[in-house]
Amino acid sequence: MAVNLHPPASLLPVAGARLGSAEAAIKKPGRKDLLLVELAPGSRVAGVFTRNAFCAAPVQLCREALGQGTAIRGLLINSGNANAGTGTAGHEAARETMAAAAAQLGCAPEQVLPFSTGVIGQKLPADRVKAALPAAKADLATEGWMQASRTIMTTDTLPKGASRQVRTSQGLVTVTGISKGAGMICPDMATLLAFVGTDARLTPAATQACLDAAVGKSFNCVTVDGDTSTNDSCVFFATAQVGTADVDEQHPDYALIVAAVTEVCIELAQAIVRDGEGATRFITIEIAQAKSEAEARLAAYALAHSPLFKTAAFAGDANWGRILAAVGRSGIPGLDVSRISVRIDDVELLVNGEPHPDYREERGAAVFAKPEYRIRIDLGRGDAGVTVWTCDFSYDYVKINAEYRT
Amino acid sequence: MAVNLHPPASLLPVAGARLGSAEAAIKKPGRKDLLLVELAPGSRVAGVFTRNAFCAAPVQLCREALGQGTAIRGLLINSGNANAGTGTAGHEAARETMAAAAAQLGCAPEQVLPFSTGVIGQKLPADRVKAALPAAKADLATEGWMQASRTIMTTDTLPKGASRQVRTSQGLVTVTGISKGAGMICPDMATLLAFVGTDARLTPAATQACLDAAVGKSFNCVTVDGDTSTNDSCVFFATAQVGTADVDEQHPDYALIVAAVTEVCIELAQAIVRDGEGATRFITIEIAQAKSEAEARLAAYALAHSPLFKTAAFAGDANWGRILAAVGRSGIPGLDVSRISVRIDDVELLVNGEPHPDYREERGAAVFAKPEYRIRIDLGRGDAGVTVWTCDFSYDYVKINAEYRT
Repeated sequence: MAVNLHPPASLLPVAGARLGSAEAAIKKPGRKDLLLVELAPGSRVAGVFTRNAFCAAPVQLCREALGQGTAIRGLLINSGNANAGTGTAGHEAARETMAAAAAQLGCAPEQVLPFSTGVIGQKLPADRVKAALPAAKADLATEGWMQASRTIMTTDTLPKGASRQVRTSQGLVTVTGISKGAGMICPDMATLLAFVGTDARLTPAATQACLDAAVGKSFNCVTVDGDTSTNDSCVFFATAQVGTADVDEQHPDYALIVAAVTEVCIELAQAIVRDGEGATRFITIEIAQAKSEAEARLAAYALAHSPLFKTAAFAGDANWGRILAAVGRSGIPGLDVSRISVRIDDVELLVNGEPHPDYREERGAAVFAKPEYRIRIDLGRGDAGVTVWTCDFSYDYVKINAEYRT
Repeated sequence: MAVNLHPPASLLPVAGARLGSAEAAIKKPGRKDLLLVELAPGSRVAGVFTRNAFCAAPVQLCREALGQGTAIRGLLINSGNANAGTGTAGHEAARETMAAAAAQLGCAPEQVLPFSTGVIGQKLPADRVKAALPAAKADLATEGWMQASRTIMTTDTLPKGASRQVRTSQGLVTVTGISKGAGMICPDMATLLAFVGTDARLTPAATQACLDAAVGKSFNCVTVDGDTSTNDSCVFFATAQVGTADVDEQHPDYALIVAAVTEVCIELAQAIVRDGEGATRFITIEIAQAKSEAEARLAAYALAHSPLFKTAAFAGDANWGRILAAVGRSGIPGLDVSRISVRIDDVELLVNGEPHPDYREERGAAVFAKPEYRIRIDLGRGDAGVTVWTCDFSYDYVKINAEYRT
């Protein structure tokens, strides 16, 4: 039961990118679980990946290909199996499917980036992936985004996608993205998987810079459960179909494109939290007056990851003591409680470390009963800040994760 | 539903310490919620307290008194209200009850240490505490430990206590302790509250050193939910009733006493995890072959705090991928996955980063179905290690914490 999340009504095609889905029966039959993306020659591709040391085989292969500056022509994505914790056999399975996809697209195997999401520690059924590839190729279309957003789902209850258009000096630029993920979500790549494309003509360096900027304000600001996945991957491609002049970071169009890509990424990242496993509340945590963004993040994530806060939020319980306790244990050196103020939406809870004289339980309860609210904490130490988004911790989180493999 | 936890059958009296319980109706009537402890003149008292910056008023007052070397004559403990997040009014309420307890014991107010546990952010009803003090005094007895272990409970399902005796050069020494706590449990004082006493004649410095040593191997090695409380306090008193010569850290009896106190603290700390809110499994996590104890702790707590691991543990699901994912994101610099081996009890899961050839799902499932098991992770980097204890994450954890105040 997602919080104020609706499936995208439509997603705009991105010239130069065609998407095709097929049924490979990777975890179970009866649903499309394989996505093939074909990119026009000359496309620039950038990626951001999990920092988990136990990263999956496809993540390692993606890093390798992008590190070598390979001209990427295709993406191959499967749901139902993460191909993680699978040792050398996992690498072989990924390479096998890359080669098969490359044969379909008429390019070299290393020009295809692989992505997997699903159960960890089980062998990827490469044969089933290969058998479904001709159907995925036959399905390729620029209109394939809506189905693609469903193909990559695992425990997601709804597909996630967003589009923006922006007028640049070289013409109308489109940005469309899809994402999946609902658990094992934490900063340092919170996406599980996200694929964002634009038809703009960005230089390779600008493609990566644009992605980094957008991720810093979106996917790296959300958390469901503090568990960073083995497979988190966010890929951004620019198909270079609009205009003739390359857009670098100094080009006046660059800022416009970054803004559009950031908006798409924020919408996709928030969608992941709104669809957090078992989520019933969407909570914005704003930390202000910190000495640095780093310490603001400490406070924000201490709260966002606190099981006691998250279960109280589930109950709609105005147990604000748990907010204080979480910030207090966040590890900020020399935190002076007597300078901290806290408000939830427009209700002042704490002013300079003391309960606000006008605070009444009913006023707090009214905010905590809402499906969406904002907690703002002023640390009284400086002028840095951060905003992160999280959700509550419900019976259903336990249920979904206890029964995931059954 | 605690995991293999039984209430203490009996607790040995500690000469020089009398305990009395009474009903103060702090949160609700009908149960004893106030504990008064009277210590013989000449007792030495040491404490370890939460590092949470939002520590409660009584914690601040304890630190103050112990920091000044005050000769402590009494402890006053209430359950049902934490007196935390209560500002200056909370300090006044605590001081008021200290003065009233001191009047009962015939000592100065600063010779009484206050302790509170329960709901955060509500004013401590000092009048009700004061009204119940005469009854607590009338109840004082060296046999008061068993009732005391029940008086200090909050969400605990069972009382927690342990005793040991050890023969020293000056005679038989007794160590008895009680603890409470089931949620908001994390290292850097995981106890919520623990009170351990001995009749040994330790010097003040040896009293603190003995407590620090015992806590390092017990309360600082357990976690239920990663939330460090605002009120964690562990107090150790030595009533100096056995022998005539002071035992310092060089005295041959010292090691014997430390060993007994450590055993009591480990039993009390494990009892807290066994009674973890909603716990259905008691899990020992052993990290070995680390470069340092600090990095071993990183890995141990990343796993012990992972909601995904804990929910899988609840389900008895051998989803060992979540173990790898948690260790992988623990932040150990340069962690080399190809050197890591994992076993659960006697089943080898992973050897040098690869699934063990003999591993079968049924073998893993058989271990994960048990109420108690050990996960051992060899990092292949050095010879440091750590052992921590934790529990799983169940529906009941959510239920208990969502409905705590209702």
